[in-house]
Amino acid sequence: MAKLVLIRHGQSEWNLSNQFTGWVDVDLSEEGVKQAQNAGREIKKAGIEFDFAYTSVLKRAIKTLHYALEESDQIWVSETKTWRLNERHYGALQGQNKQEAADQFGADQVHIWRRSYDVLPPLLDANDEGSAANDRRYANLDPKLIPGGENLKVTLDRVMPLWEDEIAPKLLDGKNIIIAAHGNSLRALSKYIEEISDEDIIDLEMATGQPVVYDFDKKLNVLSKSKL
Amino acid sequence: MAKLVLIRHGQSEWNLSNQFTGWVDVDLSEEGVKQAQNAGREIKKAGIEFDFAYTSVLKRAIKTLHYALEESDQIWVSETKTWRLNERHYGALQGQNKQEAADQFGADQVHIWRRSYDVLPPLLDANDEGSAANDRRYANLDPKLIPGGENLKVTLDRVMPLWEDEIAPKLLDGKNIIIAAHGNSLRALSKYIEEISDEDIIDLEMATGQPVVYDFDKKLNVLSKSKL
Repeated sequence: MAKLVLIRHGQSEWNLSNQFTGWVDVDLSEEGVKQAQNAGREIKKAGIEFDFAYTSVLKRAIKTLHYALEESDQIWVSETKTWRLNERHYGALQGQNKQEAADQFGADQVHIWRRSYDVLPPLLDANDEGSAANDRRYANLDPKLIPGGENLKVTLDRVMPLWEDEIAPKLLDGKNIIIAAHGNSLRALSKYIEEISDEDIIDLEMATGQPVVYDFDKKLNVLSKSKL
Repeated sequence: MAKLVLIRHGQSEWNLSNQFTGWVDVDLSEEGVKQAQNAGREIKKAGIEFDFAYTSVLKRAIKTLHYALEESDQIWVSETKTWRLNERHYGALQGQNKQEAADQFGADQVHIWRRSYDVLPPLLDANDEGSAANDRRYANLDPKLIPGGENLKVTLDRVMPLWEDEIAPKLLDGKNIIIAAHGNSLRALSKYIEEISDEDIIDLEMATGQPVVYDFDKKLNVLSKSKL
């Protein structure tokens, strides 16, 4: 029986300033650091020992992982950083204040961009300054994989190969795994794991810095889900 | 042309209290954290961009790597943690105060244990409480690989497969690499890279938290060595 722990990064500086983040590499706030450390203490209290750790290539998730592993005395656990766990790319909305976007485009439109399963946000062009195409960390990616903007459906599609090739085989092998990532890459994973419909996923929220624990049976059926 | 940066972990709590550490998982001191962060700033100033990072499974090296990568804005770089980069195992001396060991065994004997290339320290038994055989992080290692104590020669022998299979191929491929590890695992690597004799390696010291940069040509000959 294997355990999977999902943890959304602690509060970021742009959670605080109410800006769309996406693939922008925003740091944790002080409160976010505390949340991540506290998550580590809760993991330790629950006695969960990991065999593998996964995170995105964005520092707010990476640092959340490091704090959580450090506080639970297992910073030595093997870790993999992958763009597949990045936050949903928010396209041209990245960096914009959420209230200002609502003023500019209308609250209903922004609500649709934020919450719908399959509507894309306004896209960034690869030539735009903020495009991930100009970022060294994506230099080894097929340029066609670098998004100009994603909805939750697209996010789920690019998270799944990681699940299929790395996470699921290890869980089937009885290994315990922690994934420190982002609101939407984790919602995508949860949607798949819990078989949540396109409609119902809209209501699933992930709290910052709070570990969610899944217990699986040997066929990868969910036995239980709990929050630490 | 590829760059290899070696960095010995910042000052640890047992560097401060003058105890033999070896495979004991001692944390960085406050000064050690500052050294690691400063190393990251020097790396950034030097404009060195890494493709891969390697470290041991001991937190003083792992945290040094994390601080150095974070301060040089590249905490997203792929990292591998391996026991092959661990500090030399100091056998039954681990945990002992260096002065007390000198009082007990004689200063000359302790000097030989610390400095000779091929004399083993008094060994720990796999049944001893402090043995790495009881540590979850080595659970997947062939038990025959878990040392009861090492000299620099044995340390070099177990570091080399990492060089041969991972580091050298990537350097030959033009990739820049950082290795955050320990006084003796790094002295072992330096001995190999610089072809230092068994006698002369005794005099090579690695300062805590100070990056050493090697530039290689396409045949892996050292073009230059410098300290940041």
